[in-house]
Amino acid sequence: MGSVAWKQLLLNALETNNHLKHSSYMQLATIGTNGTPSNRTVVFRGFQDNTDNFQINTDTRTRKIEELKVCSSAEICWYFTDSWEQFRINGSIDIIDGLNPDPLKLQQREKSWFASSLRSRSQYLRPNPGLPCLNEQAQPDISLDPSTGPVDAFCLLILEPNQVDYVNLKNNQRLTFKLSVSEAENKSWIVTRVNP
Amino acid sequence: MGSVAWKQLLLNALETNNHLKHSSYMQLATIGTNGTPSNRTVVFRGFQDNTDNFQINTDTRTRKIEELKVCSSAEICWYFTDSWEQFRINGSIDIIDGLNPDPLKLQQREKSWFASSLRSRSQYLRPNPGLPCLNEQAQPDISLDPSTGPVDAFCLLILEPNQVDYVNLKNNQRLTFKLSVSEAENKSWIVTRVNP
Repeated sequence: MGSVAWKQLLLNALETNNHLKHSSYMQLATIGTNGTPSNRTVVFRGFQDNTDNFQINTDTRTRKIEELKVCSSAEICWYFTDSWEQFRINGSIDIIDGLNPDPLKLQQREKSWFASSLRSRSQYLRPNPGLPCLNEQAQPDISLDPSTGPVDAFCLLILEPNQVDYVNLKNNQRLTFKLSVSEAENKSWIVTRVNP
Repeated sequence: MGSVAWKQLLLNALETNNHLKHSSYMQLATIGTNGTPSNRTVVFRGFQDNTDNFQINTDTRTRKIEELKVCSSAEICWYFTDSWEQFRINGSIDIIDGLNPDPLKLQQREKSWFASSLRSRSQYLRPNPGLPCLNEQAQPDISLDPSTGPVDAFCLLILEPNQVDYVNLKNNQRLTFKLSVSEAENKSWIVTRVNP
């Protein structure tokens, strides 16, 4: 019920802002390994099947993987520049790399690999991100066979939300949605209208 | 030297993206009081005088103040949607509210108050942000005398950066700038070109 509500708000925002390339860009905050916050832009890759879970593709060699292995908590801040809506999505992240023992998860990873463009896929073959650049020249684009499956560096992140804070700056409405799990493991969302 | 470099890149980005209202919006990540990350959009209010420090206005009643009192570390993620540039600015935040004992800091706070629009200022008179909304109707805009000084809820945040990560998605260049402080307290920035 509450789930439908925040998800529907988000789907509406995605549609309203669809004409802007950057509308799928969100900021993902994690806890750095030194205990200080870490924050970067990532791309929303859709919801996982029929769930409320957010999919993000990333490189296993980036710092966020190291960080999420220590603390799986994360918060997405997603601001839609045309409709003036902000979603803050707090939850925990499951890392699905090529060594994942669950065949279903590996399938998800493969699906996400083939769903992304060839250009996106070829980025996973580039030198280790974040490490000093040894070659002063721009790296040439690496060509990749379209039938090649996910490479080692490719990783799928699944964020399972437990809290969503929504604010609309056009009408000054703010809502918070909190996940409530009963003893019988039934999930429901509790929605509260709060001051902006 | 390195300072000039990242600040100049940022000033250039601000100029290039100046036609977009949202170009002054950045995402600020902090550590939540429960140890999970917290992330929200804030507005860049310029640099503090002749320093590299970022100014942000906020309401003392928001959760970020509570969080910053426990852990002053923060990371800004600032993505410029027209020039495809991202700045990740890591540092620590000084909270300047009306009870600050330093007269110079109180002066800064007052300056920041009068530098913001009357509409922005009047928001600090609204009901406690984040608390359940007791009135179903939209709150009327509260009028505020232009000569009224900063109200209790108004707070200036100063982020002093110690690391900046810059990436340009158009030319695939990435640079990291790290603050180095010598034994004699001399500050310098060390810049490294890294893989994007």
